[in-house]
Amino acid sequence: MPERTGKYTLKISNNVTIRSSVGAAGKKESEGPLGKYFDITFTDNTLGQPTWEKSESALQKTAVCELLKKNGLVNADIDVIFAGDLLNQCISSTFGLRELNIPFLGQYGACSTMAQTMAVASIFIDSGAAERAIAVTSSHFCSAERQFRLPIEYGGQRTPTAQWTVTGSGAALLDKSNGDVTVKYITIGRIVDMKVKDATNMGAAMAPAAADTLYNFFTDTDTKPTDYDLILTGDLGKVGSELLKEILQRRNINLSDNYNDCGLMIFDLEGQDVHAGGSGCGCSASVFCSYVMKQLQAGNLKNILFIATGALMSPTSSQQGESIPSIAHLLNICSNK
Amino acid sequence: MPERTGKYTLKISNNVTIRSSVGAAGKKESEGPLGKYFDITFTDNTLGQPTWEKSESALQKTAVCELLKKNGLVNADIDVIFAGDLLNQCISSTFGLRELNIPFLGQYGACSTMAQTMAVASIFIDSGAAERAIAVTSSHFCSAERQFRLPIEYGGQRTPTAQWTVTGSGAALLDKSNGDVTVKYITIGRIVDMKVKDATNMGAAMAPAAADTLYNFFTDTDTKPTDYDLILTGDLGKVGSELLKEILQRRNINLSDNYNDCGLMIFDLEGQDVHAGGSGCGCSASVFCSYVMKQLQAGNLKNILFIATGALMSPTSSQQGESIPSIAHLLNICSNK
Repeated sequence: MPERTGKYTLKISNNVTIRSSVGAAGKKESEGPLGKYFDITFTDNTLGQPTWEKSESALQKTAVCELLKKNGLVNADIDVIFAGDLLNQCISSTFGLRELNIPFLGQYGACSTMAQTMAVASIFIDSGAAERAIAVTSSHFCSAERQFRLPIEYGGQRTPTAQWTVTGSGAALLDKSNGDVTVKYITIGRIVDMKVKDATNMGAAMAPAAADTLYNFFTDTDTKPTDYDLILTGDLGKVGSELLKEILQRRNINLSDNYNDCGLMIFDLEGQDVHAGGSGCGCSASVFCSYVMKQLQAGNLKNILFIATGALMSPTSSQQGESIPSIAHLLNICSNK
Repeated sequence: MPERTGKYTLKISNNVTIRSSVGAAGKKESEGPLGKYFDITFTDNTLGQPTWEKSESALQKTAVCELLKKNGLVNADIDVIFAGDLLNQCISSTFGLRELNIPFLGQYGACSTMAQTMAVASIFIDSGAAERAIAVTSSHFCSAERQFRLPIEYGGQRTPTAQWTVTGSGAALLDKSNGDVTVKYITIGRIVDMKVKDATNMGAAMAPAAADTLYNFFTDTDTKPTDYDLILTGDLGKVGSELLKEILQRRNINLSDNYNDCGLMIFDLEGQDVHAGGSGCGCSASVFCSYVMKQLQAGNLKNILFIATGALMSPTSSQQGESIPSIAHLLNICSNK
């Protein structure tokens, strides 16, 4: 049973396990520093589909189906699937997963979705509401560019602070089985809006939300950054990561030793022309479900914090002159290996 | 602790209580048959805001703030808020609730959102993950028309099967206190897509999802329609309600005695020119959180099924020739009065 620890944090029972995961990625991502860790990569980012939205749905479905296959499971073995994405009305998830016949709970946390789906799944598993659950999310460069910015055919210039939406998906299988990788604590984030309005600098908008959640977690658990092997944010990128360190330093929390960001890890920032780094739900999802899970399963990482961050605006809100509310959810994940 | 009952249903402990609720509604809704039951009504549907999206955010925030006030609570008393809506990237919820500083988990289930937020909140409460939670959703006729159909200024003709998006919000406070109104069972829905493509006939698209969830619930609990005072769907409207009864009749389940639909209850279908009835997240939310909760609190209703239904398409998916995947989540709610 989950147990409240401090104001914002939940202690999860010892046996809530991230049993297995699948990270799927597109062409550019497969050519980046983490290329060899992805379970599935695509050289054709259309995935043979006639529209980018259908490509993203296929990507998400592929990740889930591969996860089931890898674990010798069939759809009916899964009690509930938690899924979400960036597209309007979360159509990557709903259309991608509609044929699976698995009870479905759509989650919306923008790029924080991988942490959100795993957090809610952990609580369902811990409480007995589900015996086996899947947490999944995705993003696709071309569907996101078209929806949030400009059609890619337009060839618009990108600003130096802009991040590159990852074409990728991550799916994780959770159960209660005393496995090697367990969820220990969860901190649900609050919406933070520091009035950043630049939709091409989402790292800056999201950094204060990551800082808020990390601060709440450290306070609630009475721990400090050096208690962890790795503190990994979702996709703050170059600008947001620096801001996060600066904000926490002002509160006497020093992240410099063991901090990294999925948006910085997935691409070679200089060589791959991605400006401030990767972003999108699929960024932290594919990095966590491939590279990070493999390190936890091998015992190379023992005790990490995974904090996925989301920018909760829409093109409409930005056109109306609004700022960008943000959120970050945290999981403390341990390896018993 | 929630306990799995059958394949799709969860039994909730006896003391998970819907302690209180607030239903807020716009002008047209306040003039309908349930007008006198709403806690808050607005004669000016702009709510003094410069855009329809901001009006909807204000509507949702008003419902939550009134709920806190009514129960003598402050924001910090709430452990988590589950919220969602129909707008792209759920901006009614994120912008409406951003200043509240309450841990936030965005839910996306289209018009099934009120059932989804209450279902997930019930599991959090039952497991101890939260002591007090709020479930909330909203919709607004003008923001929905602009986003899903045409700007209202265009004055487009509506088809006979079209439903009228409700301007309304419902917010419910859940805790574990052996109150009068308790959640007894929950059934999480699966996505059902019977290939209906007509976005002006969402009742037809959603009816099979409602039938699937109801069938699963009756099977899992070994009960039948006459065991309940009221079986209430979210917003199938006139067309979808008839189809639901027909589909279930083919499986020898007869809904004729004690069935109703929030979309049929909220408007006078003849007098208010709403064609097939009400729809939108705010339809089932405002009807449940006002009229239905008042009947449960008074003991006039003792044992009901609340099944909110959602059409999971987007304008983009419809423009790409896609059908409409749908979902329905169910709560069995009892009164001890």
